[in-house]
Amino acid sequence: MDVSVFTTAQLVIEIVGIVAFALSGVIEAARRRLDVVGVSAVAILASFGGGTLRDVLLDRRPFFWVENHSLLWLVVVLASAAILFMRGKHFEPTERAMQWPDALGMGLFCAGGTQIALSMEMPALVAVMMGMITAVFGGVLRDVVCNEIPRVFNDHRPYALCAFAGGWVLVLAHHLGLPQWTCLFLSAASASALRVLAMVFDWKLPTWRT
Amino acid sequence: MDVSVFTTAQLVIEIVGIVAFALSGVIEAARRRLDVVGVSAVAILASFGGGTLRDVLLDRRPFFWVENHSLLWLVVVLASAAILFMRGKHFEPTERAMQWPDALGMGLFCAGGTQIALSMEMPALVAVMMGMITAVFGGVLRDVVCNEIPRVFNDHRPYALCAFAGGWVLVLAHHLGLPQWTCLFLSAASASALRVLAMVFDWKLPTWRT
Amino acid sequence: MDVSVFTTAQLVIEIVGIVAFALSGVIEAARRRLDVVGVSAVAILASFGGGTLRDVLLDRRPFFWVENHSLLWLVVVLASAAILFMRGKHFEPTERAMQWPDALGMGLFCAGGTQIALSMEMPALVAVMMGMITAVFGGVLRDVVCNEIPRVFNDHRPYALCAFAGGWVLVLAHHLGLPQWTCLFLSAASASALRVLAMVFDWKLPTWRT
Repeated sequence: MDVSVFTTAQLVIEIVGIVAFALSGVIEAARRRLDVVGVSAVAILASFGGGTLRDVLLDRRPFFWVENHSLLWLVVVLASAAILFMRGKHFEPTERAMQWPDALGMGLFCAGGTQIALSMEMPALVAVMMGMITAVFGGVLRDVVCNEIPRVFNDHRPYALCAFAGGWVLVLAHHLGLPQWTCLFLSAASASALRVLAMVFDWKLPTWRT
Repeated sequence: MDVSVFTTAQLVIEIVGIVAFALSGVIEAARRRLDVVGVSAVAILASFGGGTLRDVLLDRRPFFWVENHSLLWLVVVLASAAILFMRGKHFEPTERAMQWPDALGMGLFCAGGTQIALSMEMPALVAVMMGMITAVFGGVLRDVVCNEIPRVFNDHRPYALCAFAGGWVLVLAHHLGLPQWTCLFLSAASASALRVLAMVFDWKLPTWRT
Repeated sequence: MDVSVFTTAQLVIEIVGIVAFALSGVIEAARRRLDVVGVSAVAILASFGGGTLRDVLLDRRPFFWVENHSLLWLVVVLASAAILFMRGKHFEPTERAMQWPDALGMGLFCAGGTQIALSMEMPALVAVMMGMITAVFGGVLRDVVCNEIPRVFNDHRPYALCAFAGGWVLVLAHHLGLPQWTCLFLSAASASALRVLAMVFDWKLPTWRT
């Protein structure tokens, strides 16, 4: 298959993922009755926070959203449109519909983040952590700013663990010497597939016994 | 007019702004009954947090408070003095009195932050965002640490939006080829003036309809 | 005495300190009923957050936990083991037992952080602040993520102040031209000793008068 098909597919999934992440921020901000500034800020944190933290930790510049600042406009316009057109009754169905693009975006961000860290010669565990940070830390920042315990830390659903598994798939594929695009595809696909399975079969993590 | 007059004026406004930001931190920390460590830390976050985040994102060193560490002493002394001499009855009037120097500081920080990002060849929207971050993120960190939703995100008053407007004024003036000091002055003045107008006429942002 | 004895002692104290910090994170996360992802994340933040923030501010790479990623494994294994074997009744005694290794770790992290900043020619106050950040900011991040006001800011016990004092001891010893290992030892020992004294004699910081 042609590499450029992959590149286009990647771009499309990336935008789909960013929109899903941004909408998760918009809805959480709306529930807290934030104003247009708060909704935009939380949407930006949710969509770009993870990748930005990864790049700060890895000391990489320019950031994704500096190179692609049209995506920043996209999120701001999305947040403003939400304030104008979204009502309380839309939150629930939007959130449910967004689970699927969110799973796609999570897989891609996780694979991309792990790959970037590996190419900077980080140890495997650190690279996998960078992939997880890319995939889940936007949501963590979203929740911290909205004064909630991060959902990914206490909803007892496998989300970060799917990213964890996907990251190790990339490390393994990389060590087997597979071409980069295959590594990325296998990693993103397994993280997303695991997440979809977890949603469909309602998997839960063990809880604390008292 | 002489440039050195501007420089002195800038320094004075900067110190005035930092004191206003620090006092906003002191008062919020005092309301939460933090101890001297907490009050100092929140005051430092409120006054230097925005500029520091901007510099981390832009990968600039040294930080403003490393080059001017006497300002750091100023904030620590201010916080300690507040613990010794401030009582509950002083919070409200101090907060009201600080609104005006705060508006001045906000304008200057916003103009300075946007200017720095522009001079590093950031795209216009990113530069304006950096200006906003410089002006408002100290307050965001102050509120997050004090376990509140950031006021700038949910008080439905134009604050960050004044910084947003002031940032675009700088971008425009810069594109018109005006000299740097004129750009800075126009930008800071319009952000501060907008903020003062918003306070005087009690402007509000639209809220969510249910 | 031989330097290598010091180096081994430092390594042992470092690991002891990291385990104590990680356990403080595990217990706080457990109280909030976080899942295995949350417990691991909070434990990692508590043990490595302070040093990482210091390195981001000083623009140093690689991070401590990138160079020693086996320590990262240690914390993850510790967090997972805690979920399997720890019960509610263990939290209180573990927390009490951990105060002592925590005091050791605090002293060492504070001395190390101040030393690193001094060797990068930071001004004395900034260097001392970096030492404090190394020693206490892991705990701040732990509490912010768990949606609490950082304990170090409002428990009115001397903790950060012990680090503050220990940092100035290092600055002083450095100015007196003492060898680096002596500086580190004096600084860490005085910070830890002060902390132990504060615990034994139940020292309290002054509170706000209303």
